[in-house]
Amino acid sequence: MTSAPHPGGRFVGREHHFPLRIYFEDTDFSGLVYHANYLRYMERARSDMLKCAGIDQRAAFEAGEGVYAVSELDIKYKRPARFDDLLCVISTVEKLGGATVVIHQRVMLGDEMLTDARVVAAFLSREGRPKRQPKPWIAAFETLLPKEPKH
Amino acid sequence: MTSAPHPGGRFVGREHHFPLRIYFEDTDFSGLVYHANYLRYMERARSDMLKCAGIDQRAAFEAGEGVYAVSELDIKYKRPARFDDLLCVISTVEKLGGATVVIHQRVMLGDEMLTDARVVAAFLSREGRPKRQPKPWIAAFETLLPKEPKH
Amino acid sequence: MTSAPHPGGRFVGREHHFPLRIYFEDTDFSGLVYHANYLRYMERARSDMLKCAGIDQRAAFEAGEGVYAVSELDIKYKRPARFDDLLCVISTVEKLGGATVVIHQRVMLGDEMLTDARVVAAFLSREGRPKRQPKPWIAAFETLLPKEPKH
Amino acid sequence: MTSAPHPGGRFVGREHHFPLRIYFEDTDFSGLVYHANYLRYMERARSDMLKCAGIDQRAAFEAGEGVYAVSELDIKYKRPARFDDLLCVISTVEKLGGATVVIHQRVMLGDEMLTDARVVAAFLSREGRPKRQPKPWIAAFETLLPKEPKH
Repeated sequence: MTSAPHPGGRFVGREHHFPLRIYFEDTDFSGLVYHANYLRYMERARSDMLKCAGIDQRAAFEAGEGVYAVSELDIKYKRPARFDDLLCVISTVEKLGGATVVIHQRVMLGDEMLTDARVVAAFLSREGRPKRQPKPWIAAFETLLPKEPKH
Repeated sequence: MTSAPHPGGRFVGREHHFPLRIYFEDTDFSGLVYHANYLRYMERARSDMLKCAGIDQRAAFEAGEGVYAVSELDIKYKRPARFDDLLCVISTVEKLGGATVVIHQRVMLGDEMLTDARVVAAFLSREGRPKRQPKPWIAAFETLLPKEPKH
Repeated sequence: MTSAPHPGGRFVGREHHFPLRIYFEDTDFSGLVYHANYLRYMERARSDMLKCAGIDQRAAFEAGEGVYAVSELDIKYKRPARFDDLLCVISTVEKLGGATVVIHQRVMLGDEMLTDARVVAAFLSREGRPKRQPKPWIAAFETLLPKEPKH
Repeated sequence: MTSAPHPGGRFVGREHHFPLRIYFEDTDFSGLVYHANYLRYMERARSDMLKCAGIDQRAAFEAGEGVYAVSELDIKYKRPARFDDLLCVISTVEKLGGATVVIHQRVMLGDEMLTDARVVAAFLSREGRPKRQPKPWIAAFETLLPKEPKH
């Protein structure tokens, strides 16, 4: 139906790059992007990263397996974004546990870092209890972890 | 910096096609996309349409010329969208006045129409009063109007 | 725990009045409230109206009965709201069908009408099909309908 | 115009309590409140706290004095909220600098803590540079700081 290219990002080595444009909805009356919206951009980027890694969150949820929820997040806001800016969210997997994954996410405007964040996502059963991530997902994340330095 | 393709849409004849993906933030606990969010998608598509037509809204606002505001909107919700759906907003310019433009916008999932809307946007001075649209913008819109049938 | 009064509205005759404050998140860089957000305010007001009328949407959803979805909406934007404004959404039930209800909603700033809208809400089964509204809900809405003029 | 009580919170000693209800817009398809929305609730609570402390952010912005922006935030998500929950944001001023203020904010459901966060807000000039907070604001915050233990 649509002839435009699909939106979404891709992997560059172990970094996932996700582009996005700033619209009216993203800004507030100060003229800058509203601070909570960076969390939305980072979530879009994580969902796209999972998709690019072959992980189907919707199927897992509909099959009753579970869903990711953010359990911890810290973010530093360095510089603001404005209407019509073209940003890029760069995400890397930092650490992998049985039920959790730690992701480092930076929102960039060209070569400038606007925000710098660390997000802990926990996999939850539909009843909301922490649950081991599906095996193929763990395998997918393992390929994205930084290589251990050799001794 | 980013190596992914730019997000955004393009013209297919006089139709503007704008693709978008549905993320967690777009849905509500009913499992479907929250109804107000379609207005956000349509605004993104209109901003992208203006950009594709060579209109720079940010420069006009910063130069103190004015800004578009929605003055009227009607929308019919036909079918719902869900998490991870890839949608396309198809926009066409229907009617052009001195200070207003009427845009027809459909949100599509493949060949299925999810919503059907008509939006009246009014150009406003920074003081909030209706104001003639910049001449080059009127000229740009004129090329997007449906051709009058010949007599 | 909290000692502050509960947020929410109440009925004044057959009109439901719902107060709300405008925060940073509600505005955009034009300095005004972003147009799609009025739909959020109207939805909050409708949910509060149902609650005030004794209707428990969450229980009905969790019991698998169904959920309301907006099927049609038209809105006229007359005047803008700004950061820190205290608004009131005034809602009245206009028409009642088996599976639908039509609600008239105005967003007010003091005595000034900012937006004027008509919303059609349809009750849907969890599979997304139109479904007769629960009997006690129809009874509740009937008390809110305008009185027929006597002949 | 409205006869309903004003929404908003109030001080209980040095704690600011801000009540809020969860609506459709706040949730996502997992059935829980979307994680980024807690930042919106905390911002509403901070704005209300300033208002209760006699600080008029809108007047300061319109007079060209400046505006607060979040410069750092860390949040732990302990338990989820759901549609129709009545929450309370409890905020306390922890630390005061010349251009910054550190606020501790907990979102509560009754006696249960759902989220626990620390927010650093920086006062910025309209050009976006850090700037000393207005003197009367510093005075207002000083009355909200925890008392130093006596020696």
